[in-house]
Amino acid sequence: MHDLIIVGGGPAGLTAALYAGRSRLETLMLEKMALGGRILMSETIENFPGFIGDISTQGLIKRMEEQVSSLDIKIESEEVLELDPKLKSVKTHTGTYAASAIIIATGARARKLNVPGEDKLTGRGVSYCATCDGPLYKDKNVVVVGGGNTVAEEALYLARFAKSVNIVHRRDDLRASAILQERLKENKKINFILGNVVTEISGSNRVESVKIKGVGTAGESIVTCDGVFIYIGHEPETDFVKNKLKLDEAGFIMTGEDMATSEEGVFACGDCRKKSLYQVITACADGAVAADSAYRYITGEGK
Amino acid sequence: MHDLIIVGGGPAGLTAALYAGRSRLETLMLEKMALGGRILMSETIENFPGFIGDISTQGLIKRMEEQVSSLDIKIESEEVLELDPKLKSVKTHTGTYAASAIIIATGARARKLNVPGEDKLTGRGVSYCATCDGPLYKDKNVVVVGGGNTVAEEALYLARFAKSVNIVHRRDDLRASAILQERLKENKKINFILGNVVTEISGSNRVESVKIKGVGTAGESIVTCDGVFIYIGHEPETDFVKNKLKLDEAGFIMTGEDMATSEEGVFACGDCRKKSLYQVITACADGAVAADSAYRYITGEGK
Repeated sequence: MHDLIIVGGGPAGLTAALYAGRSRLETLMLEKMALGGRILMSETIENFPGFIGDISTQGLIKRMEEQVSSLDIKIESEEVLELDPKLKSVKTHTGTYAASAIIIATGARARKLNVPGEDKLTGRGVSYCATCDGPLYKDKNVVVVGGGNTVAEEALYLARFAKSVNIVHRRDDLRASAILQERLKENKKINFILGNVVTEISGSNRVESVKIKGVGTAGESIVTCDGVFIYIGHEPETDFVKNKLKLDEAGFIMTGEDMATSEEGVFACGDCRKKSLYQVITACADGAVAADSAYRYITGEGK
Repeated sequence: MHDLIIVGGGPAGLTAALYAGRSRLETLMLEKMALGGRILMSETIENFPGFIGDISTQGLIKRMEEQVSSLDIKIESEEVLELDPKLKSVKTHTGTYAASAIIIATGARARKLNVPGEDKLTGRGVSYCATCDGPLYKDKNVVVVGGGNTVAEEALYLARFAKSVNIVHRRDDLRASAILQERLKENKKINFILGNVVTEISGSNRVESVKIKGVGTAGESIVTCDGVFIYIGHEPETDFVKNKLKLDEAGFIMTGEDMATSEEGVFACGDCRKKSLYQVITACADGAVAADSAYRYITGEGK
């Protein structure tokens, strides 16, 4: 029986561990892959307060890991398959762990196109985050894939830096709101390639081009570009809490500003919860608040 | 007419500036004193993600300042005296500035005891934040001043590190909740000096002792200690928005999780707003969210 279990070791989970450890909560962190999570999809991060210029995402995670290394945090490489919110226990491939409180920080995964070249060039021109990587594409040509509001927003954001922004979307019109579509059309940097899908991303070391194909036609073209931004949605990593916690329709965990979920003693923070801005800095703050709320819940004290 | 005015240059304001500047909002920041604000009350910060060991609060602020230096952020040393939420304008001693949106990041000040030695030894044993400085007092003797829930919480927190914690309070009983009082009494490290006030803090270079005096008596004593934690409340720096924005009874600005205040186009972030955990990391996240919300408000786009 632990004081606290943290599920997930990205920025939210690591900051929760930092705060929990400093409050002397004996903590078990379970992460199924490498520490860091989705942040590692971006090459560098420029907008984390306190770091001048840029820092590699790997470097930032290493620092956070070292920060918790002196605290009473045990990190295990295990995937959580089930959660019992009443018992405050989680089940992994190897066993069951219980605690006085649980913090879920499992993050979200960007939906992939699943085309050749995508995995190989992720972090080398393929990006899932304009806010993170957009300013790196000053005076460059980029392709943006998708048709929803997010695509429109991110294309407009990218147009502040890039030389050209090509929106590739499988349908003949975007699903973005009218006002956003108007703005897209007024922007001279933005071009539309509708009724097409990306079938391949190419480049020897970094992205050099994408292959596109007309929907319902045989025609293919090559579009040269320096970057490909993919926005076909995010999926929170919350399958294991379905029917256990209150989620929104997209599967994000509903919480209060104190990170409390619908179940007492279970908290959620970072990209797996429903919120307005998904950034590393907001994930970290969520983690701090979740650890503080867990401390209050466990001890009956505030801190 | 600016895109954005940010009032206050602590961690919340500086992070708002970082995000606003990267979104190409032309921004004016108004700070009445030195950049940094209340964080400079603490010597070092150990719980900011990404910094191993500790970093001086001065150093962290310098880094944040340098981070925004390449962006279109104009920083002026001016005190804001009035806000007009409808016109989105602020008045200072020297003039009036208007913008499309305003972010308030004025922070809060800890109430001071106003006794001799307090100012001189602030940052050298006198602290207003156990979460920030508590772990620095491992096996040391500390005095905690005040009688509310916060004092009880912070005393319990400090008792995790310190050798002894003396609570000095002017009344004969604490105002803290029963459960907290029980816990205080059960904790062998915690001692009470009730019906007394601190009249002086002494030490040549760092805190060495406090002088206490009985309330309604002439008796004085000297209590030796290595640190003095003062919790007689915080005051948000929100006088200039009284009757302009919705505040709580203590004067903190009420916002949504998107940092929107009761007035459209006016956002608040950091220690001046009502929230659950007042930390540098949460102030920074607030700043990022406020800038994102301001960007959406100004442009009609998300980002």
